[in-house]
Amino acid sequence: MNMELLLFFGPVFALGLMAFNFVSFLKKPEGNERMKEISLRIRQGADAFINHEYRTVAIYVAVIAFVLSFLTAWYVGVAFIIGAFMSSLAGYLGMKAATRANVRVSEAARSKKRIGPALKVAFQGGSVMGLSVGALALLGLNIVANLFKSQLSKEQLLIVTNHIGVNFIPFAMTLSGYSLGCSIVAMFDRVGGGVYTKAADMAADLVGKTELKLPEDDPRNPATIADNVGDNVGDVAGLGADLLESFVGAILSAIVLASYNYVLSGKYYETAVQLIFYPIVFTTIGLIACSVGILFIVLRKLSDKPHYELNMALIISALLTGIGNFLATGYMLKNQPPEGLVNFGFRYGPYSAYFSAITGIVAGIIIGLLAEYYTSDNFVPTRNLSYKSLQGTGMVISGGLALGMKSTFLPSFVLFVSIVLADHFAGLYGVAMGAVGMLSFVATSVTIDSYGPIADNAGGISEMAELEPEVRQITDRLDMVGNTTAAIGKGFAIGSASLAALSLFASYIYSQTSPGEYVKSIQELLNLNIINARTLGGAILGAALPYLFSGILIEAVVKSASKMVDEIRRQVKEMPGILDGTQTPDYEKCITISADGALKEMVLPAMISIVTPLVSGFTFGVDFVGGLLVGTTLSGIMLALFTANAGGAWDNAKKHLEQGKIPGLSKGSAEHSALVVGDTVGDPLKDTVGPSLDILIKIMAVVSLIFAPLFQKFSIF
Amino acid sequence: MNMELLLFFGPVFALGLMAFNFVSFLKKPEGNERMKEISLRIRQGADAFINHEYRTVAIYVAVIAFVLSFLTAWYVGVAFIIGAFMSSLAGYLGMKAATRANVRVSEAARSKKRIGPALKVAFQGGSVMGLSVGALALLGLNIVANLFKSQLSKEQLLIVTNHIGVNFIPFAMTLSGYSLGCSIVAMFDRVGGGVYTKAADMAADLVGKTELKLPEDDPRNPATIADNVGDNVGDVAGLGADLLESFVGAILSAIVLASYNYVLSGKYYETAVQLIFYPIVFTTIGLIACSVGILFIVLRKLSDKPHYELNMALIISALLTGIGNFLATGYMLKNQPPEGLVNFGFRYGPYSAYFSAITGIVAGIIIGLLAEYYTSDNFVPTRNLSYKSLQGTGMVISGGLALGMKSTFLPSFVLFVSIVLADHFAGLYGVAMGAVGMLSFVATSVTIDSYGPIADNAGGISEMAELEPEVRQITDRLDMVGNTTAAIGKGFAIGSASLAALSLFASYIYSQTSPGEYVKSIQELLNLNIINARTLGGAILGAALPYLFSGILIEAVVKSASKMVDEIRRQVKEMPGILDGTQTPDYEKCITISADGALKEMVLPAMISIVTPLVSGFTFGVDFVGGLLVGTTLSGIMLALFTANAGGAWDNAKKHLEQGKIPGLSKGSAEHSALVVGDTVGDPLKDTVGPSLDILIKIMAVVSLIFAPLFQKFSIF
Repeated sequence: MNMELLLFFGPVFALGLMAFNFVSFLKKPEGNERMKEISLRIRQGADAFINHEYRTVAIYVAVIAFVLSFLTAWYVGVAFIIGAFMSSLAGYLGMKAATRANVRVSEAARSKKRIGPALKVAFQGGSVMGLSVGALALLGLNIVANLFKSQLSKEQLLIVTNHIGVNFIPFAMTLSGYSLGCSIVAMFDRVGGGVYTKAADMAADLVGKTELKLPEDDPRNPATIADNVGDNVGDVAGLGADLLESFVGAILSAIVLASYNYVLSGKYYETAVQLIFYPIVFTTIGLIACSVGILFIVLRKLSDKPHYELNMALIISALLTGIGNFLATGYMLKNQPPEGLVNFGFRYGPYSAYFSAITGIVAGIIIGLLAEYYTSDNFVPTRNLSYKSLQGTGMVISGGLALGMKSTFLPSFVLFVSIVLADHFAGLYGVAMGAVGMLSFVATSVTIDSYGPIADNAGGISEMAELEPEVRQITDRLDMVGNTTAAIGKGFAIGSASLAALSLFASYIYSQTSPGEYVKSIQELLNLNIINARTLGGAILGAALPYLFSGILIEAVVKSASKMVDEIRRQVKEMPGILDGTQTPDYEKCITISADGALKEMVLPAMISIVTPLVSGFTFGVDFVGGLLVGTTLSGIMLALFTANAGGAWDNAKKHLEQGKIPGLSKGSAEHSALVVGDTVGDPLKDTVGPSLDILIKIMAVVSLIFAPLFQKFSIF
Repeated sequence: MNMELLLFFGPVFALGLMAFNFVSFLKKPEGNERMKEISLRIRQGADAFINHEYRTVAIYVAVIAFVLSFLTAWYVGVAFIIGAFMSSLAGYLGMKAATRANVRVSEAARSKKRIGPALKVAFQGGSVMGLSVGALALLGLNIVANLFKSQLSKEQLLIVTNHIGVNFIPFAMTLSGYSLGCSIVAMFDRVGGGVYTKAADMAADLVGKTELKLPEDDPRNPATIADNVGDNVGDVAGLGADLLESFVGAILSAIVLASYNYVLSGKYYETAVQLIFYPIVFTTIGLIACSVGILFIVLRKLSDKPHYELNMALIISALLTGIGNFLATGYMLKNQPPEGLVNFGFRYGPYSAYFSAITGIVAGIIIGLLAEYYTSDNFVPTRNLSYKSLQGTGMVISGGLALGMKSTFLPSFVLFVSIVLADHFAGLYGVAMGAVGMLSFVATSVTIDSYGPIADNAGGISEMAELEPEVRQITDRLDMVGNTTAAIGKGFAIGSASLAALSLFASYIYSQTSPGEYVKSIQELLNLNIINARTLGGAILGAALPYLFSGILIEAVVKSASKMVDEIRRQVKEMPGILDGTQTPDYEKCITISADGALKEMVLPAMISIVTPLVSGFTFGVDFVGGLLVGTTLSGIMLALFTANAGGAWDNAKKHLEQGKIPGLSKGSAEHSALVVGDTVGDPLKDTVGPSLDILIKIMAVVSLIFAPLFQKFSIF
């Protein structure tokens, strides 16, 4: 089969399916006037925010593209813009779909009184995001690769000198630019969306639940629409852009490593091209497999067991990815050179890299299951946390911190084993392929991830439209089911980020070597000595960076939430009719506060990720930046695991009580308030900080990689 | 002057002064019967606990000494026991003094109605701990060095092979054993004391302040005596052992580096011996300087300005340390060889190492001042945190987390600069000397640190004995003044731990080299390549370790505190007379709960610090352990800064409100409760977790260093 055809067929097929799903659920009815009105408000809020956000992002993208073009080459800037565009488009489509699917899920639940039909609408809605992520990422990659095809020729794949006299490898740089574009947009989307949604959520909880004792999604709560808008801009658009970024970052890490390996060895051109295309082929086959898995849901009449249906979609996607790639690997890599260094020391012939990818998949699943263990109230840790509420708020908080801290150890152990194994199979290229493997069926896992907030929103609409309680029960069941899958999705995100960062980091070291230095042992070359004052110093500063970043993010959420708290209190005081339902709260005000806060606060964290490696590199040089990357990666992984699990556990500990699982305790008790505080504290940790950290790690690595030659030439000290 | 004489004179002089201070304040009156009775209870509680604790520790010490002797050589075991003994003795003496000084401070405040006399008693009490730490650490070191003097001969300073066929350097190993002994006891004391004190403190706050609305130290609170006992076993004995450990660790890091440098170069024996003794001389002069500074307080009639008096003591100690060592350096290191490698590349002649030490001192002070900035309510961050209480508990917690996270960045920057500078002056030996410098006037800074809990206890006794409010005012003022100095002391502890760990780490790498490999460039030799799957994997696991450790510690405190909460509630319920003062609570029960909890929970964390590097080394070998140390050090420093500052800020944010500095808010308000929760959450972070992390880092480094030759020979994979 013609490879080029395959590489375009995959994304196009997935986009076709995406369009089919979109059109198909749009035809479903929207329900009664009240439902339509609420849904419209959410949609308008989300649209207004995303338009505003993208306008802001566009300015930064333009500036960065200009700087990139100037300092490296024009085509890096172009690739960067394409990446930013693809990422934005995926977020845009996914959010458009989500804000249109939510009300139709409510209506399906209301009119059909069954889970099956509601599940299908929610799944189709989520699949728009999932398929967009997979398809647009690969489409963009293919466009860039084809636009600059000449860079892949035998001569051009080597080092060239640009107009300011810096050596670099055009193909690797161009793809890095593309990846950086995806990452920057993801950072803005994640942080902006995260601040938006958590400010609304925290304030709605703090005043609505704790002070006014209103239930979740009560229409009398002025922040309730903002909260629902937040689910869409944060948990859908933010999540989509984030996983697209992870996906591209993983692929990039393998491609760049293969390019550098060729440049430094100068041998076996065909092998280099094979290794460059292997991760793209791997993920394209994954995308086709996911399309089949998604079709399996879309084309059937669904049962009322959402757990079964979603698992089937995931298992079909994963299995087909595995089988398809097993066949493709044998076909694609059959002509491996015997020389260890050139093929990264493949130990098991052509299948070595495949084994590494499978290692990554297994590791990602285990990390996800561990997250589930620590954060689900089906298991001891979260259940115990729930009982801490008997001894007051302080104990709930301390207990959650302890739980989150302890929960970092086992996933780290899994990461360690997977790195050693992937490296054993296929060297550092294998480590990169581990990251690629984890994300190879991203389309289905993002579908399931995005389906959650859609179901959540559907529940909110049912509540606000005062539909029968059975409707809410259906949407609640839908919402709950996605949790395990979502946990596994998070495992993939942080796991792949770690592996990809390490491989990018190896490329960074490679980039400091000149051709011809590629001697007997890779180990001699791929060396960053940590026992060096500058590198150690960089590592310490790098380790502090994720903390600084996280602190700033939490503060941003707190600041916005504070304003919202004041606003809710003001409305309730000035319009006493709100509480007895005779006056409609001013929802718009709250939406504006969330949006303004998010737009203002998203800039600084994004800038930190880009500017820190640049400033460090131009002042203290390459060794310092090497240390910086080590420190940031190590510390970032831990903080990401800690914040995600602590936050998740607090959330579910609260739900545990709310579902009446603690004898004698119910909503409104002092114990419930204690758990609500835990949940409030956990909100920005798990939904703003945690998911942004993996983007931070990768942006820093890619920026350093792109600018490494300049650091070498122009650093001050 | 004869060096040996100086090295013994220093500690003996300091011990003499210590005895003088002890006897002198013991002669002061103890006050009325009620005061005597309360003080006796505290004393008995503390004595019972420390006796029990030391019995437990003795068993572990014996086992470890046996293993050490078996695997390395008998004298390493002997040195280990001496270290453990010195550390225990210092903690013991300090605590004995503190539990006898507290009531005498109350009495001095009561009878003299002036700050001056009370200050002198508190200071003399604290100086027992301070002088013991400095003197016993150095005395032990001298004893070990003299017992095994032959190891310092030209032949013996080189590598020997032990009975199980492993190569090691006797002198370096013996001193490492000594240092490990100090560290292990410190770990037990810190963790045991930390769990003890914080369980009592948290429970006293949770039930006493929040539920029953009792003021601090109210005699009706059943946990109040346990809380005061805790101050002594945690903040005095724990702190003393901790700083003794830091002090010895810093000195060791310089000595071992100098030994290895000699072994590997095989040249300039005299220089090696000079560099081995330089840190000991430096700190001995520091100890004498501190004695003078302390005498300055003891021999004068004190003013009523405690701030001025304490600062004078510190400034005199620091200045004399600086001047004395400037003179000594010129005398001691005047015959430096010209060769860069042998003298670690001293750039500024004999004064290079001195400059490094001064760099360390300056860095430590800045880190301390930064801690003060983040945690004192004289500055914006903590003051803002206090105002977050207007928006509820959730915001207080989130705000504190954000503050703590952000606060890691600037100290890390200072650490980075100090490492690069110290290295610039005198190579990695300079980095070690930076750590030595920070702790060179440890006697005075520990005196001031221990003075705080004594004043705090005096306040508690005044409250429980229902003395006039003016007495409490005097003790409160005494207590407050020590805070800045305590913050700077913490800066020294974490700063020196970082620098010492890095130097120990370099020695660890050295230990994997054979003599004769010492070639042209140290950089070639001192190389730990981080781009190696095993090292990277180790670094990830290592970075998770401080989190696991912290999580376990927090949980230990929470568990003990929970039991205590139940007990307090039970007593108040079953003995209704407690609240109106007609029944005496059962203080003993609470003391037993704290003590049992501490004794049970202190074992696991201590074992983690020893067992992890051993298991890792024997399974995955030296590269893995190298990575492990990098990860643990980086992640441990960050967590230590984060926990210390978040906890400190919560504490002072609460005090800010309590002191009436927030208009319209007072004790007992909802806002106050929110801040009390913050303080409760912060308690185990700042007083159990934070201070234990630097010990964890060092134990792991020293254990790895001692066993490195065995890992090389016997590791499984």
